[in-house]
Formats: sequence, structure tokens, C-alpha cells
Amino acid sequence: MTNPQPPLMGAMMDQPLLISSIIRFAARHYGGSEIVSRRVEGDVHRYTVRDCEARARRLADVLRAQHVAPGERVGTLAWNGYRHMELYYAVSGSGAVLHTINPRLHPDQIAYIVNHAEDRLLFFDLTFLPLVEAIAPRCPTVKAFVLMSDRDHMPAGDSIANLLCYEDLLDAAPADYTWPEFDEHAAASLCYTSGTTGNPKGALYSHRSTVLHAYASAMPNALNVGAADVVLPVVPMFHVNAWGLPYSVLLAGAKLVLPGAALDGKSLYELFETEGVTFSAGVPTVWLGLVNYALQNGLAFSTFRRTVIGGAACPPALMDTLIDRLGVKVIHAWGMTEMSPLGTTGGLLAKHRDLPVESQRAILRKQGHAIFGVDMKIVDDGGRELPWDGRTSGHLLVKGPWIVSRYFRDEGGDVLRDGWFPTGDVATIDADGFMQITDRSKDVIKSGGEWIGSIDIENIAMGHPAVLQAACIGVHHPKWDERPVLVVVRRPGASLTREEMLRFFEGRIAKFWMPDDVVFVDALPTGATGKIQKNRLREQFAAYRLPGGG
Amino acid sequence: MTNPQPPLMGAMMDQPLLISSIIRFAARHYGGSEIVSRRVEGDVHRYTVRDCEARARRLADVLRAQHVAPGERVGTLAWNGYRHMELYYAVSGSGAVLHTINPRLHPDQIAYIVNHAEDRLLFFDLTFLPLVEAIAPRCPTVKAFVLMSDRDHMPAGDSIANLLCYEDLLDAAPADYTWPEFDEHAAASLCYTSGTTGNPKGALYSHRSTVLHAYASAMPNALNVGAADVVLPVVPMFHVNAWGLPYSVLLAGAKLVLPGAALDGKSLYELFETEGVTFSAGVPTVWLGLVNYALQNGLAFSTFRRTVIGGAACPPALMDTLIDRLGVKVIHAWGMTEMSPLGTTGGLLAKHRDLPVESQRAILRKQGHAIFGVDMKIVDDGGRELPWDGRTSGHLLVKGPWIVSRYFRDEGGDVLRDGWFPTGDVATIDADGFMQITDRSKDVIKSGGEWIGSIDIENIAMGHPAVLQAACIGVHHPKWDERPVLVVVRRPGASLTREEMLRFFEGRIAKFWMPDDVVFVDALPTGATGKIQKNRLREQFAAYRLPGGG
Repeated sequence: MTNPQPPLMGAMMDQPLLISSIIRFAARHYGGSEIVSRRVEGDVHRYTVRDCEARARRLADVLRAQHVAPGERVGTLAWNGYRHMELYYAVSGSGAVLHTINPRLHPDQIAYIVNHAEDRLLFFDLTFLPLVEAIAPRCPTVKAFVLMSDRDHMPAGDSIANLLCYEDLLDAAPADYTWPEFDEHAAASLCYTSGTTGNPKGALYSHRSTVLHAYASAMPNALNVGAADVVLPVVPMFHVNAWGLPYSVLLAGAKLVLPGAALDGKSLYELFETEGVTFSAGVPTVWLGLVNYALQNGLAFSTFRRTVIGGAACPPALMDTLIDRLGVKVIHAWGMTEMSPLGTTGGLLAKHRDLPVESQRAILRKQGHAIFGVDMKIVDDGGRELPWDGRTSGHLLVKGPWIVSRYFRDEGGDVLRDGWFPTGDVATIDADGFMQITDRSKDVIKSGGEWIGSIDIENIAMGHPAVLQAACIGVHHPKWDERPVLVVVRRPGASLTREEMLRFFEGRIAKFWMPDDVVFVDALPTGATGKIQKNRLREQFAAYRLPGGG
Repeated sequence: MTNPQPPLMGAMMDQPLLISSIIRFAARHYGGSEIVSRRVEGDVHRYTVRDCEARARRLADVLRAQHVAPGERVGTLAWNGYRHMELYYAVSGSGAVLHTINPRLHPDQIAYIVNHAEDRLLFFDLTFLPLVEAIAPRCPTVKAFVLMSDRDHMPAGDSIANLLCYEDLLDAAPADYTWPEFDEHAAASLCYTSGTTGNPKGALYSHRSTVLHAYASAMPNALNVGAADVVLPVVPMFHVNAWGLPYSVLLAGAKLVLPGAALDGKSLYELFETEGVTFSAGVPTVWLGLVNYALQNGLAFSTFRRTVIGGAACPPALMDTLIDRLGVKVIHAWGMTEMSPLGTTGGLLAKHRDLPVESQRAILRKQGHAIFGVDMKIVDDGGRELPWDGRTSGHLLVKGPWIVSRYFRDEGGDVLRDGWFPTGDVATIDADGFMQITDRSKDVIKSGGEWIGSIDIENIAMGHPAVLQAACIGVHHPKWDERPVLVVVRRPGASLTREEMLRFFEGRIAKFWMPDDVVFVDALPTGATGKIQKNRLREQFAAYRLPGGG
């Protein structure tokens, strides 16, 4: 029942959904909203959205003068700061493609990504001067490197050919640039996945996908960003567009606080307090640092009331501490680079209002509901859809207008399955639509035909006071195919035996899920984004044999 | 700098924004959310969004069986209830056009609208049987009339040819209908303006405009609808799609409570309490009724915390009572049929957090900020843009993807001015982007080259305890062109003289704005939607002469 050409069209204004429309709107309607940045130069910089838009238009003119054509890529190696905001809007707004690069990757990977994207210009913060010096000779597509600072901070030597100064370029640019209008399906920005296996692959977002994601992510069920908020994104702008906050905060007219490179607990706490931050977002490790700093110094938050935690599951103990001891509401979020990134967010329904706190908390620990625009399903190995009963685990597939249909340059070929994107995650979905990640597809432990979720086991282990880190992997078993083994890093000074650890699981999981062994190590292998790399852990355990000769 | 064909397109899934995607999403992800309706049959009906979607698909099949083609119009004369929700999704979702008709219009106007829209089917609530009996013979395009009830409530006679029973049709329909996919620019629904001058004109919304409006209106800066809310739209579903709530409540997964025809204070209060309503929306007169009922009976609200008030400016005294005495946050909203309807909503910025209550209240009284997607400007009679200084009044023009570009069947010809829609309102906008309606363009009083806002004067007059209603109109003056005259209806039993009324204005407005006269009347002329009709009032005062022979 498809009607390709409807017989009657609506009589509404036809305006493309463009990223420039966000900053134009913000400068016009919330022009006085502040953007406060802790600079890598050391000081705190503040100006308004109106200033930001005016400078972004000058910067767009700089791109034109540097012969960056529509559709061409412009790379950034930068922290969360106002100049990075200007790049977000100038590059995409002018019709070019913003390519944010994760500086924590290995220089070889960065050089690979710059070459794969064929970046024409590369903008970078002072911090990354040594990195850029190292990769510049290997990046032939880059016509100029632009240091995001002023003349005073330019290096003395000529270690980088074609090095330009950001503020000099802006000073020389005229102020009369106007944002062009074009097809909303045009490419707007490019993020590469961290790529634990194979080469990094690029997710190429469009203006339409970015604006729809911004609308959806600002809604109360998602990040809930409003004009009275003061938002500090700890999640980096080089990591999936900081979960869309550089867009959603501006369209909401909120005040934006950008922390630069100082993400330790003390620096963040001070910025939260001096700027009156109400809402923040970041990965669990950041909150551990901030929470520890606050608790160790007996500090409270004056204005900080809500945070979104994503990138990895929030340890239940961290969630409890934030809520119960610091009065900060925690919203669990799940998504991925291929999803712009938001897919689901946690929260309660009207019918949960009168539940006991512990029952509410159990709901908040789930990754939550799909945001309107995203559809999801769980399937078995054969692709058959599985029931939403909160118990059955399956491969999680997603669909929606801000989800990739393929990778940049068709890397990896056809990635969809019947129009659905396979996330690589394993999850349950309950009858109320709450999704919970139980594992990565490649990490799930398949034992006797049943799937054992390694994340559940790790979360329980992390609840033991002597455990600093824990990872659960499947190892070969002659009868059950695989059995779980728990690998633990003890807290400094803490003592914990294999038997004590196993006893801690009793009554907390089904007997069949009980790890067959506990192994203590000094450290777990982690990647550039701080995530534990289980594929490397499995390699380390390739020669391991289960107790009892299994 | 227009690039009609971008050289690089994004690599994201391309999915049309369709109204059916809202109910599909809701049924799948928030399927258990309740829809509770007080029926015109007298009882309370409750079911889930999942039930609603299943019945809407059956209803879509009924439309197919009745030979309603894509793009054809289907009329409704109905209150806020679950069957009307089913029509919202079945008609638009199937590709036909939902035409909601205001039953408060004169039967002649209703017949005109039905004929102008060429409605193929007309669905109506039991309440409107006499109305439909009266107009049916004059509506030749309507192939069948469908009573939205069951067999037991069908009338005995044959006063209407081709009368069908809603529940019978649904019972006979198969359950396997699937929603079609088509161009998001297709027409989805049709609302006629009340048309104080000339014939009513139709605003023809598209699927794209409706879904974008639903996203935007759910955001915290706008209606702020989340999954934990229980929402009761008092604003009728026959009035600009109940401000989009039938869409935004479903995409947010909130519980929906539909009050049917009983909009008096007592009925509403009881429904708010029994269903745990947290959020509502409606015109000021409805809140007057509810507030009076609550205060007179010493009642408080257990769960009701927020309401959006629009359709007319909220009298400041009503806003104060709701906030200070009943603990209900008031959000001012402004929009119009031609805007789907939301244009602006009130609220505070981060920097207003520590202002004294009275200063905050003054901000909340404004119509507020444009919602992202809407742009606005104020212009003088010559079309020149005026400054945003909070003092200069101008004609308000708007632009955006959910604003009409023309009327249905090109009624009224070319309505835009350089791509902007003239709202017919006069407003100020301050430096922070807060818009305040000061008048209608046709009601503004032009005196000695200055514009005097009649609404300001009326609001002050309404603050006098002896005033029930007030309207301010301009009358001819030989020297100043026009001077304001205030027409007042006293509260029953209250006494108020011309001099007392004028003295009440002292210190509250500029001397030049002081009305030249106060005239007391028994009643003011009102239209079908309860608004005071100033054009009729001006006709009544055509022979009036100012005191002193002005």
C-alpha cells in the first residue's frame, strides 16, 4: 500500500532542516545566552550565542577563502570549547563536513582517519601541537593546519608546513557572510567509530538527521534540555558530537559551559559551582572522579540536579551515590556512533510514581525507552524477533532517521539487515518497552544453549567493596561450549579471595550463571576511550584452562 | 550561495515523518500507556495505546472499504475522546485528510466548511445528532454519516440517509491492516479558521509539519510532555488539533485523559483527581471555571502541577491564583490555526533564577519565546523590521515548517509577505527574545502616530474587582485620529463609576494611553469560540461621540 506521489500535498512552508538554522535561531531568539569555556590556554572565556554566531559566520568565510568546497571534510582535534562550537556551525553551516577526531586514538589511527576522510583543513587545540607535528607529514590531503588560538600562542619554529593562526584568520574575515540554504539530506558531519576490529569506519550524518536528533534529544524523555538550564557536557565534542548537546543546548536557549581539557573531579566541581551548572552528561568514569572528589571533601552541589550517563552502563553503586548522597537525578542513556548517538534513555512512567524507591531504582538502571524516531527489536541468531518479556536476550537491531544506512565510502559494505542496523549489543526488552543491555554480541557467553550476560555478572562483582574493576569472559568448555570466568582487579590495599568473590554472587544470580573461576590480575586491557577491551582479554586467556580440567 | 544539489549526501536512513509513525511507536514502545475518556454516553472508558492503535488500523480499513481515497477529506464533529483519537490516526495514517470541525460554529458555517472541504464521510458524537440532522441534506459530498457510538445508541428513525454505526463498522473490519508509507509532504489534516471576516479558510497540514510540530511542542521549552505525565487536554480536538497534544502525548508515552463534553469546573476537578492528572492545557475561561470551583469548595490538587494557557492572554489575576493559591505552574502559549498552532511559549531563562517573584511573574505574563523551528519579526506599516526593545510595537510576522504557505484551495490568494506569514497580531519583542502580544492589527488604536495596545488596557481593567469583562476600542478623534474608549461589563452586584475606573489606571499606564471614556454595558458581543468580537463592538459604537465633542 505505497503511494509514491500523494494526490494532495499539505500547504505548509517548505524549509530544509539545516544545522545553520539552529545557530541562527539561537542568536536571534536567545542571543544573550552565555557560552563559558575553560580554555586550554588556562583562563576562562565567556561570550554570548550572538557572539558565537557572528564569529561562526566569519569562520565560514575563512573556509570559503581557503577553498573548502561544499561536501569537503574539515578535521578537528579539539576539546570542548567555544572555538570548537564555532567550527561545529561554520563547517556544517557552510555546506562542508565537520570531521571531529578523537585525539586519544593512536597517532597511526588518526593519520589513517585524516587520510580516509581526505580532510582539507585540520583545526587543533594547543594541547595537540605535538600530535599534529607527528602526523602532519603523513596527511597529504590537508592543505593547511590551523592552531585554534591567537598569535601569542603560535609556535616559534616551522615544525608544521602551512600552519595558520585561528584568530588571525578570523580577524581578517569580513562580517557579512550569510548562511546558504541547501538540501537537508546533505552531509553535515563525520565521526569514525573507535573500531576495535578492522579499520575505523565513518558515520556520515546529514543536516536532516542532526536536526531531528537535536529535537528528539532535547525532549523530556531524553536529555530534557530547557532554557532555564545551565549545561556542562563532559562528554567530548570529539565523541559523537557530544551526544548532540552542541545542537540541543543552543536550540533550547540554555547556558552552555565547556570544560576544556580539565576533566578531573576538582576542576569539574569548581566549574559546576561557579557557573551554576544544572545538568551534565558523560561516561561513568568521569562521574566516579567527580563524586569521589565531592565526597572526600564533604562538598555538596548548589545547582547540579540531573546528569545523563552513557557510553557504558552506570555502575549501580555510582547511581545510588549520585541520587541518595548528592541529590543528582541520574538518567541512563544508550546509543552509539552509528546512531548520532542517542537511542534510548531511562526514566519512570506515570504508573511507577508510587513504587518503593528500590523498585524505581531497578527501572532506572535499565537503558530505558527508545526515543521517538528510533525503533528497535531483539532477534535470535537466525534473525527471528524475540518476545519483549524482560528475560529473553537477543541481538539488538535499530532503525530510524538518525541511524546510518551505510558507512562513509561504503566501508564494510552493506551493513543493514532487512533495513535494520545491527548494534552488536545483546539486550532484553520488557513488556513496558524498557530495554536493558546484557552484553555485546561478541562478548555474550553461550553456555548449554543459554546466553549468559557478562555485564550482569560484572555489575554484581563491581558491587563488592574490594573490587576495582571486573570483566567476565567465556572460555571453552567441552560439555557446555563456554563457561564464564571472572577477571578481577582488586582495589589497592583490599584483600579478596576467589571463594569470597564467588560467595558474593550467591542469591544474586542463577546458579547456571555462576562463574566457574575467578582470576585476579593487576590491570585490564583498555582502549582509547577507556573501555575494557574484552577481545584482548580473551587473547590473554587463550591458553587458560578451567579448574577441574574443563 | 545556494547549492541545490549537494555534492555529498549523508549516509543516514531515509524515513518519512508520518503521523502513523507516532502511533506505531507508541503502541510498540509505550503500548501499556492508558487512554481514559469520559464518554458522551455518560460513563468512563479506558484502554491502552496498544488497543487504540489496533482499533485505528481497523478504522483505516473501514475507510478503505468506504472508498475514501488518499488525499480525500473525512470530517469529524466530536469531543475529546478515544474514538476521536482513533480517527486522528486512522484518517491521516491511511493517507486521507482529517478534517476536524468546530461544532460551536453556526450550522450554516459548518455546512459551508463541509462542502468547501468536500468531506466524503462525516463522523460525529451523539451530542451532535440534531446538528447533523439539520445539515445532512445540504452536504451532498458526504457519502455516509457515521455516529461514533454503538448499536444501542443509534437513533430509531431515518432522519439521516446513509447513517452508519461506528462500532458496527469496526466489528466488521479485519485486524490485519498495515500503515502505508508515502511522501511526508502529503496532506494530513485540515482545520478552518473561525473567520471573523469573510468565509472560513482552511489550513492544510502535512505529515511532515505535524510530526515536526509534535517534536517541537513536546520539548521542555514548549509543552514539556514526558512519559511520567498524565495529560488532560481541555483544549478541544476540534480546535487546531488540541494544540498537537493527541500527537505529542503519544510520542512521549504519557497517560492521556480525555474529558469529553463535560468541561465545567466540577467535572474537570473530579477527573483531574481520579486520574492523577499532572498537566493540562486550555483557554483562560476554562481555568476560571476550574479555579472558582476549587476555591469555592476549599479543594486542592493532588497531582496537577502545570498548565499551558493559550487561545487568549491569561488574565494576570488568574495566573497568580493558579500559581500562588493552587500550586499550578502556568505556561503562557501563543499560536494560531495557521501555525499548527504553537508559535511561542512563556518561561524563564537561567539568568532569571534568582529574580524576585514579581519580576519573574512579569516575564511569565509575556507570550514568550519562539519554539525552535519558528522565526518571527515585528514590522511597521511599511514592512520595515522594528527593534527588539520590549517597547516598540509592530505587526508580528512568522515563518517555519509548520506554518501555512497558503490556504486550502488557495482561498484568499497569496497570503505571505516575502515568505513571512502575517499573523494579524501586534506585538513587542524584548532584547531577550520574549514576545508580548499587545493587540490585534485590526484592533490597535493609532493615536497621534503612536500605537496604543488595547489588550494592555483591558488587562488592567480586568484587574479591578468590580470588572467582569472589558474591551477597549479606538474611536475617531479629529486631532489624534483615534482615542481609546473602554467598554466594561460590571460583575453582578458590583458598583463602579466611570471616575473610579479611570482612577484605577493612574500610575499603571502612560497618560497618553488613558481611555478618553468608560462606557458600561450589559454584555459584550462574542463569537463561536467565546472571544470578544471587537469588530461588532466597533459597529455598535459607530454613532458614539467622545465626551467633549471629540
